Amino acid sequence: MAPVSPRIRFKKEFKELTMTILRFLCLSFLLTSFASTAKTGEMPAEQQLAVRYIQAVTDHDYQALNRYYSRESIFNDRTASKTYTGRRHIISFLRRAHQGVLEYNFNIEHMFNSGSLVVMIGSYHYKGPGEQFGKPGKIIDLAIPGVTTVKLDMDNRRVSKHEDLMDYQTMVDQLAVQ
Amino acid sequence: MAPVSPRIRFKKEFKELTMTILRFLCLSFLLTSFASTAKTGEMPAEQQLAVRYIQAVTDHDYQALNRYYSRESIFNDRTASKTYTGRRHIISFLRRAHQGVLEYNFNIEHMFNSGSLVVMIGSYHYKGPGEQFGKPGKIIDLAIPGVTTVKLDMDNRRVSKHEDLMDYQTMVDQLAVQ
Repeated sequence: MAPVSPRIRFKKEFKELTMTILRFLCLSFLLTSFASTAKTGEMPAEQQLAVRYIQAVTDHDYQALNRYYSRESIFNDRTASKTYTGRRHIISFLRRAHQGVLEYNFNIEHMFNSGSLVVMIGSYHYKGPGEQFGKPGKIIDLAIPGVTTVKLDMDNRRVSKHEDLMDYQTMVDQLAVQ
Repeated sequence: MAPVSPRIRFKKEFKELTMTILRFLCLSFLLTSFASTAKTGEMPAEQQLAVRYIQAVTDHDYQALNRYYSRESIFNDRTASKTYTGRRHIISFLRRAHQGVLEYNFNIEHMFNSGSLVVMIGSYHYKGPGEQFGKPGKIIDLAIPGVTTVKLDMDNRRVSKHEDLMDYQTMVDQLAVQ
């Protein structure tokens, strides 16, 4: 075997170590991504419907929402003690709340269902005008932890009840520094 | 300056790199711990009461639970569609459910409140006899993601309503391999 200088051996060992670290970091990243990605293909039908419905909410797709709600649907923000009943009132509330919004999505970190009751845990990301939040003339950026449960009517593919639990204290803390 | 051999330099650089990695890992660990630790000192009174109540539940402290519930208290597992009303029925249910349990705790990952409504997101850890789960003669170990909300009566320091949303599918998956 040809003799190897300590300097070359160092470079080799250093390179190997770097590769190991990189491999470890990539794996951690992949595992984290997998854990937080909702894989639509394997999801129960109830969760798929809930995800599509939430997308209609965050995309301001009022035409789709019109089909998801019935005259009996209930939209309840328990942490704000606000309830709206029937598609007309719910959609008119959502139109007001989402006026001028630039970015809006729900990053679902964990989701499960028990029959037609779907639970989504994650955080709502909101970027838009600060008027509604006491910050006129400013664009604000918020990530509000929240739990949204939807009770579905699977036969008619409708939302019987939408319930939000939102961490408004975190929102207030984020607003304070913007 | 005394000449330094490449072998010694390698050892020194390797040691420094190891220390940097260790420092990075320690820091990551600390940050993660801080993020998920509920610091009782800074917590709103409602969250403190909710945490103490949940501890009474997971510690099987029925004497304390007797004080937390009134005759009107409601215990509702929405994902199991089960409701118990009044301290007598709730405690008798908890006694049945927790028979023979070896370890039981709720690892709260995120908590927030809106007035007297407290939301706790985390996972319930359960270790105990498998009889109730169709695994007789076995000791089973479960970590069930869940959201528990408690509506408090702060004047009387009581729990008006306890509501659970549990990821029973994850529980079933965990049972399948035990």
